[in-house]
Amino acid sequence: MRQKLAAEFLGTLWLVATVVGSGIMADRLSAGNDGLALLGNTIATGAILYVLITLFSQISGAHFNPVVSWVLMLKGNLNKQDITPYIISQISGGICGAFLAHIMFEVPVFQLSENLRSGPFQYFSEIVASFGLVLTILLGVRYRPEAVAMLVGLYITAAYWFTASTSFANPAVTIARTLTNSFSGIYYGDTGFFILAQLIGGYLALRVARFLEAG
Amino acid sequence: MRQKLAAEFLGTLWLVATVVGSGIMADRLSAGNDGLALLGNTIATGAILYVLITLFSQISGAHFNPVVSWVLMLKGNLNKQDITPYIISQISGGICGAFLAHIMFEVPVFQLSENLRSGPFQYFSEIVASFGLVLTILLGVRYRPEAVAMLVGLYITAAYWFTASTSFANPAVTIARTLTNSFSGIYYGDTGFFILAQLIGGYLALRVARFLEAG
Amino acid sequence: MRQKLAAEFLGTLWLVATVVGSGIMADRLSAGNDGLALLGNTIATGAILYVLITLFSQISGAHFNPVVSWVLMLKGNLNKQDITPYIISQISGGICGAFLAHIMFEVPVFQLSENLRSGPFQYFSEIVASFGLVLTILLGVRYRPEAVAMLVGLYITAAYWFTASTSFANPAVTIARTLTNSFSGIYYGDTGFFILAQLIGGYLALRVARFLEAG
Amino acid sequence: MRQKLAAEFLGTLWLVATVVGSGIMADRLSAGNDGLALLGNTIATGAILYVLITLFSQISGAHFNPVVSWVLMLKGNLNKQDITPYIISQISGGICGAFLAHIMFEVPVFQLSENLRSGPFQYFSEIVASFGLVLTILLGVRYRPEAVAMLVGLYITAAYWFTASTSFANPAVTIARTLTNSFSGIYYGDTGFFILAQLIGGYLALRVARFLEAG
Repeated sequence: MRQKLAAEFLGTLWLVATVVGSGIMADRLSAGNDGLALLGNTIATGAILYVLITLFSQISGAHFNPVVSWVLMLKGNLNKQDITPYIISQISGGICGAFLAHIMFEVPVFQLSENLRSGPFQYFSEIVASFGLVLTILLGVRYRPEAVAMLVGLYITAAYWFTASTSFANPAVTIARTLTNSFSGIYYGDTGFFILAQLIGGYLALRVARFLEAG
Repeated sequence: MRQKLAAEFLGTLWLVATVVGSGIMADRLSAGNDGLALLGNTIATGAILYVLITLFSQISGAHFNPVVSWVLMLKGNLNKQDITPYIISQISGGICGAFLAHIMFEVPVFQLSENLRSGPFQYFSEIVASFGLVLTILLGVRYRPEAVAMLVGLYITAAYWFTASTSFANPAVTIARTLTNSFSGIYYGDTGFFILAQLIGGYLALRVARFLEAG
Repeated sequence: MRQKLAAEFLGTLWLVATVVGSGIMADRLSAGNDGLALLGNTIATGAILYVLITLFSQISGAHFNPVVSWVLMLKGNLNKQDITPYIISQISGGICGAFLAHIMFEVPVFQLSENLRSGPFQYFSEIVASFGLVLTILLGVRYRPEAVAMLVGLYITAAYWFTASTSFANPAVTIARTLTNSFSGIYYGDTGFFILAQLIGGYLALRVARFLEAG
Repeated sequence: MRQKLAAEFLGTLWLVATVVGSGIMADRLSAGNDGLALLGNTIATGAILYVLITLFSQISGAHFNPVVSWVLMLKGNLNKQDITPYIISQISGGICGAFLAHIMFEVPVFQLSENLRSGPFQYFSEIVASFGLVLTILLGVRYRPEAVAMLVGLYITAAYWFTASTSFANPAVTIARTLTNSFSGIYYGDTGFFILAQLIGGYLALRVARFLEAG
């Protein structure tokens, strides 16, 4: 169990360090061109997701995401007593990932994002993004388990561009991103609806997956 | 059968939401640089095709495209009575995908594209694009079935750039794209020749695949 | 044999149509930014190479390149009487590919490139590029045959950027590219040394592969 | 053994030629847009890493990196008497790779970089980058050995963006990059701390991998 929690902590840390760090790097280098910045951010995030899920899936399942852990618990693939330590590992890992990126890029370690991402269309985007992520994982695990790392990496690659919120789709990452006032940050006041939307999207995906798998 | 039609509906919806949504996102962020916009659009579309085909191929065959369903029916791989419900699912899914993207990006749900894509060179491009797509699928299914998702994702990645029409190659997606007046839209008056060209390209691919496989 | 030659013809046609077509598209859209244009050109070319080699490798071996056919003949993997028809198919396919791209993009079908790519450094780059390509194929076929399509696609992706000539590495493609006065063209007067360099690079790769495989 | 050392020499040469060459190409073409330049540099480097590791892993193990060889020696996967010739091959290969890129791009062969990359944040970035690289290799070899080439290629793709130093993570490459006064260069005075940081990162990864694998 210590190994599992360490894997969830380290994986979520690494994921957030990549999201935040590549956001800072891309923003600095792109001279105000947000399309170019999102491209750098996308490529780094999609690539690291493939790496992290491949490395850690046999240790902890490589969730790195409380919604994923929660849905897998509902499916019976994660023990009920494991859900709380998993989520604590993910959230604390994510926060440390933001700190790590800040240290590398020589900016203040403790920051609060002022990046507003509010309104029903943003929240609706998060339902869509999380629905897609969880459905990708559930059907992937069922039909092509060896491809799940590639599936999630490429799903997020697409979702950064096809959702209006750039697809957070992860409460631990959302919380960590309140702590960076950079390209990838989010104002903490918006996170309540973001996380609610992520839970709704995940739950809908569980229902749709059950229907599709019944065939 | 309900699962199959749901998979075709959901997959085509998701595909169009990605094409339209990433087109809007890329266009907004790229500050008028169409090369950068097409790059974002390309990466998102190629990535989601890999995901959707991997997830749904064991449920419905993952066509998401009336030309593909029609050619596979001609080959005897799809029952004749299934072709109509498949195509209805694809077209209605595609239309809902355009609506979904519009809702996320806070633009009017109902739009009509004014994006002219007419002339014999555009139509010829669609014959080429559809020929290539269907040949990729037919030879892929024959020689490397486990690689079809990657083949189609990378084929479209290339075809967005090497055809003058940016490779629609799909009547359901073409119809859905008449309903978005954004980067990826097409004026409805041009769709007749586009769809005709797509059918011609698909049929030619079937003939060429038969010849090549005879060796 | 008819199938083999058709596959070499069609594959080389498709490859050149992608190189030339994506070059025109990328150049038109990138507003004079050559870095962005090369990026679009790179992604399309790398992607289509994976597709073409995967589709045609079991039909013809998927050479699409006279240097590759020649080296494989020297290794004894291609019959001596097949080399001439293979090369004729590749060269004629490549030329038709340039024509096809021109028709799609509504430019004159017959063109002569004025794009000078001369000087010893360009020629030296072609030795390096072709050495790398042929070594990739030879070692790939030996150690990971199922990965050759991905290896060649990613090798060319890199070689477009790390060689000063953007890595033609293929006499059939070189000849075809004399017939397009666009981004990817080459003045026909430069092709003699280009092709000579490609043969030298390929032969060196054969020698180095023999040494490395002897271990 | 001659084959192994030749593979390490050639692989490191090729890797550095790609890093330096694509840096020069990307810098020339990107018209001062460093984000675009890093994108070209990233894609070329990630792609060639997949190629080189796939081609040479069965010959020499495909280290191309003294930290990797050293950690694998500590693990008992490389003979102690092999470590010195491996490192000599890697460093001399890397230096020749910088020369090769310079010849292709028609710039002076012998150069010294004036590109300052100093300060504790750069060094800290190298600890993080090397920790990640070595952990990726160790866990990859353990859990998904056939995916190590893809894992390393995508890890470096991400690490170019999420670390402030753009992730050298390799003493042989670091030394070679002191010899190019271009986009990818590093002032030789900064290399001491870079290499020290890389060794620290690699050693920490070895410890963390042991802990995680104990589960």
